Formats: sequence, structure tokens, C-alpha cells
Amino acid sequence: MEGVDHLAHERQKAQFDVEEMKVVWAGSRHALELSDRISRLVASDPAFRKDNRTVLSRKELFKNTLRKAAYAWKRIIELRLTEEEAARLRFYVDEPAFTDLHWGMFVPAIKGQGTDEQQQKWLTLAYKMQIIGCYAQTELGHGSNVQGLETTATFDPKADEFIINSPTLTSSKWWPGGLGKIATHGVIYARLITDGQDHGVHGFIVQLRSLEDHMPLPGITIGDIGMKFGNGAYNTMDNGVLRFDNVRIPRDQMLMRVSQVTREGKYVMSNVPRQLVYGTMVYVRQTIVVDASCALSRAVTIATRYSAVRRQFGSQDGGPETQVIDYKTQQNRLFPLLASAYAFRFVGEWLKWLYTDVTQRLQANDFSTLPEAHACTAGLKSLTTSITADAIEECRKLCGGHGYLCSSGLPELIAVYVPACTYEGDNVVLLLQVARYLMKAVSQLPSGKKPVGTTAYMGRVEYLMQCRSDVQRAEDWLKPNVVLQAFEARAARMSVACAQKLAQFSNSEEGFAELSPILVEASLAHCQLIVVSKFIEKLQQDIPGKGVKEQLEALCSVYALHLLHKHSGDFLSTGTITAKQASLANDQLLSLYSKVRPNAVALVDAFNYTDHYLGSILGRYDGNVYPKLYEEAWKDPLNEYVVPDGFHEYISPMLKQQLRNARL
Amino acid sequence: MEGVDHLAHERQKAQFDVEEMKVVWAGSRHALELSDRISRLVASDPAFRKDNRTVLSRKELFKNTLRKAAYAWKRIIELRLTEEEAARLRFYVDEPAFTDLHWGMFVPAIKGQGTDEQQQKWLTLAYKMQIIGCYAQTELGHGSNVQGLETTATFDPKADEFIINSPTLTSSKWWPGGLGKIATHGVIYARLITDGQDHGVHGFIVQLRSLEDHMPLPGITIGDIGMKFGNGAYNTMDNGVLRFDNVRIPRDQMLMRVSQVTREGKYVMSNVPRQLVYGTMVYVRQTIVVDASCALSRAVTIATRYSAVRRQFGSQDGGPETQVIDYKTQQNRLFPLLASAYAFRFVGEWLKWLYTDVTQRLQANDFSTLPEAHACTAGLKSLTTSITADAIEECRKLCGGHGYLCSSGLPELIAVYVPACTYEGDNVVLLLQVARYLMKAVSQLPSGKKPVGTTAYMGRVEYLMQCRSDVQRAEDWLKPNVVLQAFEARAARMSVACAQKLAQFSNSEEGFAELSPILVEASLAHCQLIVVSKFIEKLQQDIPGKGVKEQLEALCSVYALHLLHKHSGDFLSTGTITAKQASLANDQLLSLYSKVRPNAVALVDAFNYTDHYLGSILGRYDGNVYPKLYEEAWKDPLNEYVVPDGFHEYISPMLKQQLRNARL
Ligand SMILES: Cc1cc2nc3c(=O)[nH]c(=O)nc-3n(C[C@H](O)[C@H](O)[C@H](O)COP(=O)(O)OP(=O)(O)OC[C@H]3O[C@@H](n4cnc5c(N)ncnc54)[C@H](O)[C@@H]3O)c2cc1C
Ligand SMILES: Cc1cc2nc3c(=O)[nH]c(=O)nc-3n(C[C@H](O)[C@H](O)[C@H](O)COP(=O)(O)OP(=O)(O)OC[C@H]3O[C@@H](n4cnc5c(N)ncnc54)[C@H](O)[C@@H]3O)c2cc1C
Repeated sequence: MEGVDHLAHERQKAQFDVEEMKVVWAGSRHALELSDRISRLVASDPAFRKDNRTVLSRKELFKNTLRKAAYAWKRIIELRLTEEEAARLRFYVDEPAFTDLHWGMFVPAIKGQGTDEQQQKWLTLAYKMQIIGCYAQTELGHGSNVQGLETTATFDPKADEFIINSPTLTSSKWWPGGLGKIATHGVIYARLITDGQDHGVHGFIVQLRSLEDHMPLPGITIGDIGMKFGNGAYNTMDNGVLRFDNVRIPRDQMLMRVSQVTREGKYVMSNVPRQLVYGTMVYVRQTIVVDASCALSRAVTIATRYSAVRRQFGSQDGGPETQVIDYKTQQNRLFPLLASAYAFRFVGEWLKWLYTDVTQRLQANDFSTLPEAHACTAGLKSLTTSITADAIEECRKLCGGHGYLCSSGLPELIAVYVPACTYEGDNVVLLLQVARYLMKAVSQLPSGKKPVGTTAYMGRVEYLMQCRSDVQRAEDWLKPNVVLQAFEARAARMSVACAQKLAQFSNSEEGFAELSPILVEASLAHCQLIVVSKFIEKLQQDIPGKGVKEQLEALCSVYALHLLHKHSGDFLSTGTITAKQASLANDQLLSLYSKVRPNAVALVDAFNYTDHYLGSILGRYDGNVYPKLYEEAWKDPLNEYVVPDGFHEYISPMLKQQLRNARL
Repeated sequence: MEGVDHLAHERQKAQFDVEEMKVVWAGSRHALELSDRISRLVASDPAFRKDNRTVLSRKELFKNTLRKAAYAWKRIIELRLTEEEAARLRFYVDEPAFTDLHWGMFVPAIKGQGTDEQQQKWLTLAYKMQIIGCYAQTELGHGSNVQGLETTATFDPKADEFIINSPTLTSSKWWPGGLGKIATHGVIYARLITDGQDHGVHGFIVQLRSLEDHMPLPGITIGDIGMKFGNGAYNTMDNGVLRFDNVRIPRDQMLMRVSQVTREGKYVMSNVPRQLVYGTMVYVRQTIVVDASCALSRAVTIATRYSAVRRQFGSQDGGPETQVIDYKTQQNRLFPLLASAYAFRFVGEWLKWLYTDVTQRLQANDFSTLPEAHACTAGLKSLTTSITADAIEECRKLCGGHGYLCSSGLPELIAVYVPACTYEGDNVVLLLQVARYLMKAVSQLPSGKKPVGTTAYMGRVEYLMQCRSDVQRAEDWLKPNVVLQAFEARAARMSVACAQKLAQFSNSEEGFAELSPILVEASLAHCQLIVVSKFIEKLQQDIPGKGVKEQLEALCSVYALHLLHKHSGDFLSTGTITAKQASLANDQLLSLYSKVRPNAVALVDAFNYTDHYLGSILGRYDGNVYPKLYEEAWKDPLNEYVVPDGFHEYISPMLKQQLRNARL
């Protein structure tokens, strides 16, 4: 069987150039070459094996992660990988580890909030991993409400030191990854207190463990917070708990780029704008959007390939049964997710551009686009992670019973992914922030202040409030402008309706609280519009390769029309479209599936994932599912013995009716 | 702290008699007394401890399950528990085990399909657990399509035996619970072949393992299929793989109630109606609906109590922050789930009645209601399990980061629950069956054939096609008849619209396949109507207890109106209600939340779950969340040592820049 490609007939059906689509997905030829090379490097190295992860005990699992992280770093040094290559390598190792926080949060926090001197000192150490850092913000009692953190950093002018303290149980740091067992240092957030005055939450670099024997330093209590969702999954990470008993650190370990405490204990703001901090958030959330497209595309690859392998019902005259991917219900569940993966990829790419743009403007002291960029990344983080979390689970269901086996790869993918809805901002809290931005934008419309960036469409609000869709035939829904106008009109009308309701409250905070459920819906409509419009913009670019653009056009329509169907209540109740037009949109959607169908397997091949990265028997490139599932089963520890441990004590006495005397 | 009730102030707010509500939830005073007594019995017995489940390795976990199962059976014997009490005990032990399949599938299958003699022989053994049975239908290659099973049972008239064989890899039995390591016998489904003729799939009782040494009998290969989703969770179960190499069983081990093979090898049908088989399905699926209400209510209990404990933002003048349950977005996510738990409970109760009714009719040779009962239970199984699976995950998100910890109880609840969407019929396949039934009902309307049971409303199709809702104010949506008519009209119109589209196809099978995505939506609308109408019917009964009925009325409205909002596209596109009316419905829904809010904690107290059964620190009855979370963390195996295993090999060389020489 080895060497056979059970999906060859599917691949032959493709009507486009898969290699060119790989370039589009990767972002550039360079990015594709890089991903391809590094992913193969990881896949071919047995040290990075991960198929045994779900049967390891917590301790074995964790030790194994330490080994992989060290080995990865060793390879990075040996092969003299660039920063970009090293990041890709960690990505393809595909195992949450303390290094994620070190590189993804600790280093960026110092970069964003540290002075030049601080950066010089600490980043030099961090880049060589002579210290390992974590990011400790959340506490047992406070996550979303960062301003409510209870840890204190009190300046002692006599000693020129801060005293870091955990005054209550709920002030214990709780959740930071890498903290529990590994980090030597952390960026710790605490309320800055000078001379009895509370200046709110600031960041401090605190050494946590001895660089000699790794023991926590005096006054510091640290541990792991325990098992998390799933086997394998995020349990490779040592999310930790941390308490400070009046721990002293030098004054220069406060991150002082934005504000300082002087030798005398005076609190002063630097002339660096505070908004800089938002730049980091825009950066981190943009990476989360890109990660969403990765996680989603992975799950979709598994579900698509397996749906092409799996046959059930519909055999005629003893011929083969129907591939389940041919069932319209399966397509109606799967293809919109495939389209979403591409949509999230392109909006992620655009966010990368946005981040660069914002950064350049900040350097030129132009803060005008920052609030909009901030709202937009918050909203897109929320939208893409919520959809992806649900979608991975849907992909599991699309695989029937076999999707429930760890060997399908989907259980770990779900368990490791779902917290993305919570970390870096709870998704509902984020949508409420977007709503605040939108309500402000609407309220400023009469003043003539032009809304910018992704809210620019609000500038045409008068038109959008009364326009009517001119769709008459199903095919009309394939026109980008028709779709765009419908999404713009729906979003604008929902925002305006909220603003009007809001105006009826004398206390606007009370009104906001009262109306929050519909405000969240308006935010979502706005965010969906962004994704749709960025997909459409992408298609206005020159995209080479036979048939590539046509496929993307079909996927763009699938993406937009499935949203339109799912939220048809919004479109209808705002009068944006008529019931007849909604029905035509769904007709068009269903007929698009037939266009996607022959290309489905090739469209997931274009993600260019190795079997190692996918980690799924159901998603194997060669489709050789059944023999491999069968083989894999026998590796379970329970199969080491034919008669299971416990039989003689518990089962035999039961069968022999001798339980009465058994010691259980 | 011990003994303090942090939720006392919440409990004092309740505007109804919680004890009476407990009776309503349990179904009767007797049922409440029983549940209460048995759940306390289990909770107070340390042998049933389950808080360590998520850190056990597969082998430890499984052995522990065997111990509990044996111990439970010992207690059942010692305490001379009735069948009803024993079932409750297994329920509160709350750990999937081989006994579930023995009692829940093996015994019912023999009861339903065995002759009196066969029942006499096998049930006697099974009731005493002298044999342990499993239910082996699904194969590696076939699940949903039972008629496509490949295992063969060929009659050999010379020996008066059947030869059971697995002709292909895909014919391996795959998934049956209890099979992998424990079952001594199984009801095995195989294609019956006599004299070269294939009579389709039938059930056979096959001994799998020796009753002496537990080794698989000659010709039989068995193993466990490996790890499944989640830690703890369903990994306590030995779902198995099974292959037969021409295994012989006596002729009388074919289940012969409906059809027989004679000594001569002739295949004959008995005069017992085939439809009897459906009776078993109605039974099993009804229990699944009740289980959905249990799983959902458990998750809702955790999320509700924790939402009342958790405070975030909104502190004024240094006072306490806002309880997150007071945020309208939180209410908008949580309260409809609370209402759904009650809704599923009542529809489950009604299904129990339906099953009894169908059984009595069958005994009187009245098969008239069977197809409708079958469609209705299939649809309700699909609806309730899909919603519950999503809802448990939503409850996890409602608990923010802490919901992701195993100590919250939610991860295990999710992982153990989600396969309910797949087993006993894939939820989409089931909705397609409902659609077939609906399309048939619609097509028979012109003939004057009165639709029965839950489709009776179709009899008023002419009225329902043209009626208009007369809602003018938000409060109008509180009237049961108004709601009912809207749901009936929407369901009827969606079915009729499908039927009309179907009629345009010359080949109706092709049309059905083509239209399946909208057919599934019509089925769902029909099933939602059933749940809403059974909730309304429940409220027409006499319900004693101060305030109890008022609370249920509010919940019923929340249930119906949240569905109406969620699916407003359906209601609007079918012209059932106007945009204005949809908006009023949502206004009413939001204002109902204020009625539910003070009663929320008491409404989950009414489920009467012990802390043992809930298995959640966030859901503790006393709300003493933070100290217990903190305590629990330290129990993780990683916290056995301060410096983790692997530090010296992997982390120290990294920090000391000595990786080059390290052996990794
Ligand atoms: C896997 C994982 C890794 C993490 N890693 C780190 C890390 O490395 N470092 C670190 O510092 N932290 C980390 N965290 C913590 C994470 O940042 C927080 O969990 C997150 O910020 C959410 O906060 P919370 O848990 O307090 O949720 P809560 O705020 O308690 O949310 C509970 C519920 O209340 C609702 N809610 C809260 N406020 C409002 C409001 N104003 N209006 C309406 N509803 C509201 C939420 O929507 C939610 O439903 C991690 C968490 C996880 C799960
Ligand atoms: C935890 C667990 C316990 C189980 N226990 C048992 C047990 O004790 N005994 C036993 O015999 N079995 C058991 N099973 C097996 C279970 O009954 C099957 O998994 C179930 O019947 C679904 O079948 P499948 O896995 O073949 O899914 P498939 O039919 O392969 O489904 C795959 C996809 O195809 C779609 N699909 C299939 N047919 C159609 C169609 N006609 N039209 C449209 N879409 C279609 C489905 O919707 C799904 O999306 C168990 C399974 C699990 C997960």
C-alpha cells in the first residue's frame, strides 16, 4: 500500500495550479520556500515526533517538551537559522512551550515598554536565552480588568528599590505560561505606589529563579496551576501561580519607556506617547488572526481529505458508496469553513500591513489611525478566534465517530485552540470595545468628522441607510459590489440603530450596559464586513497562475454568502435585502458548492502542510486512512496486555459472583 | 472559611420555592427523593472520588474505572438496591464504563430482538453480571450506513452453526464500548447468509472471551482503539476493535424474535412486526434527550454560580466590582442555556410518556403512531445533543480563563459529551430522516390524510401559510399562543417551501440530495417547535409551589424568544413576523433577563446536584472558589518537585550556553 495515493483521482480533478495557490497562501515565494524547507526539516527529524503526546502522563509530557524546546534551540544555533527561520521552526514543532511566551510576550513587552538601555541590557540576555522570560499580568482575581490588578510595587526611596508584594490570595499571579516551572524572569504587572500614591498598573522585570540552581528566589512562591483541557494539548505548558512576599528589585527594573520613577521617588511621564502600548497589542493580536487561519486550515484539511476518503450509503449495483464529501449537507458545513480559512489568511496579511503602517506613523508622531487600528484588531481577533474554535469542533463532527479518536488529530487541535477565545482579551469584552469605537464614530458623523480606515464606509451613511439591493437573479450575488454594499448597509444600519436606542438613555453608560447584547451584534456585523471587504480587495490584485483567481473568487463568494445566510435576520430586519433576495443568495451559495467540489482536495493541499504538522491519520496526504487507524490502535498502553490490569481484582470476582468477599 | 456560603445573598433573592422546583425538575417527589438519596450516598463514599481523574495515565484510569464499577455493583448487591436505584447509582458515579453498554445496549437489544427463550437464557446471566455484554454494530468502514456492514454470519447447515467472519479490514468492528478489554459477550451485527443468499444485517449473540481466563476465544482478535478526546472523560471506556476469523456459534444465538433461520437453513419471518425494532431506538434516544438536559444543566450550574462569584470591572468608589452575571452580554449568553436545560428536561419527560404510549400501542398491534414517534425522537436527539455540546463549551467560555482548567470540571464535561452528536445516529443524518418524514407528511396533505402527533399542526397548513402575527407590543410575545403560532407558521412554511422546490425535480431522490441543506433547516424548525410546544403544554399543568410556575413561564419565554431571535432570518423570510415584531421580541427577551437574574442561582440549585457530581471548583455550592482553586493547583504532579524533571538535561545547558555539547 505504501506509496499509493488514494486521493490521486481527487487531485486530478483540480482546475487550478496548486503550486501557484501555495504561493498565494504563504504570502510570497520567499515565504513558501521558507515554510516548505523548515516544515520538512522538522517533519524528517524523529526528535520532533509528536504522535505519542496524548498518552503521556503530565510529567513525561512536560519533560518531553523541555527536551524538544532545547533541541529546537540547539538546531537553531547549529544551522545558524535567521530569526524568521527560527520562528518558523518553533511553529512547525507545534507544541506549546515556555519559549512561546519568551519570544512572543516577554521580548516584545521589553521592546515596547523598555527604555533603550533596558532593551540593551535585557534583550541581549533574552536573545541568547541566558535568561528565560514570561509575561505575568493575569491574577487569580483579575484577568479582563487589568486596571483591577492587586499586586503592588511600592517604591522605597531609601533603598532605591521597588517592593513587589501579593497582598491577597486573589492577587496571586495565575495563568502566565512558562512561569510554573521554567521562567527565570518575568515582566510582572503591578500597581505602582510612590509615596502612598497609586499610579495604576505598570510593568517590572523581576527575576524569579536562581540562575544557579533554578530555585525560586527568597520571598517568591511558584507552582504550576494544574491540568488544562485535553490530553497533550496545552498541558505541555507550565501555566503558573506566583506569590510575592515583599520582594525587592532595583529601581531600574521598572519598564520606563513611557513613565519613570526618579531616584527621589517622583513619578514622571516621558514625552513618549502612551499610545505606544497599543502598538504592541495590535502586533500580538495580528499574530493571533494569522494563527486562526493556520488552525482552521489544518482542521479543514483533515475534514476535507477524510470526507473524500470516507464513503457511506448510496452504493448502486454493488458499486462503491458515495464519498461523504458529495453530500450537500457535508459541503454546506465544510466549504464555508474552507472559505473562512482563506478569508482569515488574507485579513491576517492585511493586518500585518496595518501594523507596519501604524508603526511608521507612530514614529512620525501621527496617532490618528491608532484608535481605529486598535478597534479593528480587537474585533478581528474576536471574530476569527471564535469562528475557528467552533469550526475545528465542526470539522471533528464532519469526521463522524473517527474524529473523536486522538489519532484523528482533531481533539488536540480543539483543546489547544479554544483558549484563544479568552487570552489576549476575552472575545465578548473585545467586541464591546469595538462597539464603543463604533458608537463614537456614529456620534461624530454630524460634526462632519470623516471616519477613517475600516469605518470609512460610515461616511456614506446617508446613502447606506436608504439604498436597496438590486439583486434580481442568483448570479447577481457573485458581483463584489453587490455583496459589499449589502454588508456595508447592514453594518451601518445596525450601528445607527444602536446609536439611536442609546440616545434614549439619559445616562449613556447605563444605556451601553443595557444595550450591550445588540451592540455586540453590531460590532460583529462591522467585523464581518472588514473580512469580506479585505477578501474582495485581495482579488483586485494581480494573482497569477492558471485558475487560481477563479478559485479564490468562488471562495470569496462562498464566504460572504454563507455569512449572509447565517445572519439573514440582520439583513432582512434592517431592510437591506428582501426575502426573495435572501433566498437567491442561498441558491447561489448552494450552486457554488458544485464549483468548489472538484477543487476541494487541491485547495487544502495548497496549505502545504506536512503529515507531521497535521498530526492526523484522517488527514494523511495519501488518504490511506483505514490501515493506519488500525495500526495506531494497537499502540495504546491498554493493549500491552491482552487481559487488562485490574481483571483479577475487579472483573473476575464479578463474573464469578464472588464480589462480597472482594476487597475493592 | 469552611461553612461560609458565599452565595447566600444570591439564594435570598430567589422569588420562588426552590424545594418545589426540585420536584418539578426531578419529575416527581419520588424521583427527587431517590436522586437525592443516591447522589448523597455516592458523594459521601470516598471510593467514588473522581477529582483525580484527569491526571491519571490511561492504564491507571482504566483500572480505577474497573474498581469503581465492581465496587458499585457490590454496593448495589449489599444494599439490595432496586433496578431504578441501581441505575441512579451508576448515573451519579459519573464515569463512562463497560457497564453502561451492558445495561444500556446489550440487555435492551436482547429484550427487543430476542425470543422469549433467548431472553430467559441470556438475560438471567446478564442481570447477575455472570456475563458482560457489549453492542457491536459499527465497523471501521461503516457507522451511519448500518445496511453496509461487512461482517458475515454464514449458516452452515451441516453443523447447525453460523460462521462469523470479518472478510476485510474495514469490516473490523470498531467503537463498541466495553468491547476492548472487558466484555465476555456481544450482540454482534452481521450480514446473514444462508445458502449463498444475503438477507441483510441481523444480530447475533457471540461469546468473545473465555469465562475462565478472560482470553479471547479462538479466531477472535480484540483490542482497544486508543485514546479519545480529553483527559479522563471517555478514556475510562474501552471502546474496542474486533476481528473474526471464521468463528462458529450455535444457530440459536441468532436473535430470532423477528426472523429465524430454521434447522434446514430456511430464512423465515416471524409474525412479530419488524417495526418492533424501532421501539428500542425510540427508547434509547429518549434516554439521550434526558441525558442532554443533565449535561446541560450541570454546565449551566457551574457557569451560573461562578458568574455570581466572579467580579470584574465597574467598581465605584472602591466598592466591590460588578458580578459578571450582571452584565447583559453574560445574561444573553447564559440565561437561554438555563432555559434550554429546563426545556430539554420537559421534552425528555414527554418522550418518556411517548415511549410508553408507543409500546402499549405496539402490544395492541397499533403501529399508526410509530413512524411519527420515530421521526420525532430522531429529531429531538439531534437537536438536544447538538445544542448541549455547544452550550457546555459556551459555559466554559463564560467562566473566562479559569474555565479552561480541569478543576473547573468543564473540560471533562465537554470531552465526554460531544460524541453524543455522533453516536446513536449522526445528528445531520438524523435530521435528514426527519426531513423525509416531513416531506411525506406534506405530500399527503392533499389526500386528506390527517397528520398525527407532533405534525398535527400541518393539518392547519392553509391557515398557517397565510396567518399574520398580531404582536404590537413587546409584552404580546409573552402570550403562549402568539409564540406557538409563530413557530408553527415558520415550521409549516419552511416545510411547504421545501416540498414545492422538491416538486420541481423529476427525480425526487436527486432533488432531496440537492435540497438537503434547506431540508435540514426545515427539520430543525420543526423540532424546535416541538420543544417550545411541550414546554408550553407543561405550563398548562397544575404546578404547585410559591412562584414556581412564574419562573417557568419566564424561562419558557426566554427559550422561545432566544430561538426566535437566533433564527429571525427564518421567521422574517417566511413572512411569519415583521421586522418590527422581531425587534419587539428581542426587547422582550432582554427585559426578561431582569426577571431571571435574581432567581438564577436558585434556578440551578433546583437541579439538586451534589458538589461531587458537579465535580467543579467554579461550581461549588458555597461559592468558595479562589481558596479551593489555589489549593487544587498544588496537587498537580508537576508540583511534586520545585525544580522540574528535565531541568538539568535541557534547561540548564540552555541557560549556560552549553547546548552544543548536550545530548538531547
Ligand atoms: C491558556 C491560557 C494562557 C494564558 N496565558 C497568560 C499569560 O501568559 N500571561 C498572563 O498574564 N495571562 C495569561 N492568561 C490569562 C488570560 O489573559 C485571561 O484569562 C483573560 O484575560 C480573560 O480574563 P479572565 O480569565 O479574568 O476572564 P473574566 O474577565 O473573569 O471573564 C469571565 C466572564 O465575564 C465576562 N466579562 C468580564 N468583564 C466583562 C464586561 N466588562 N462586560 C461584559 N462581560 C464581561 C467575560 O465575557 C466572561 O464571559 C492565559 C489564559 C489562558 C486560558
Ligand atoms: C464515543 C463513541 C462511542 C460509541 N459506542 C458504540 C457502541 O458501543 N457500539 C457501536 O456499535 N458503535 C458505537 N459507536 C459508533 C457510532 O455509532 C458511529 O460513530 C455513528 O453511528 C456515526 O457513524 P460514523 O462514525 O460512521 O460516521 P459517518 O457516517 O462516517 O459520518 C461522517 C460524516 O458523513 C456524514 N454523512 C454520512 N452519511 C450521510 C448521508 N447519507 N447524508 C449526508 N451526510 C452523511 C455525517 O453527517 C458526517 O458528517 C460509538 C462512537 C463513539 C464516538
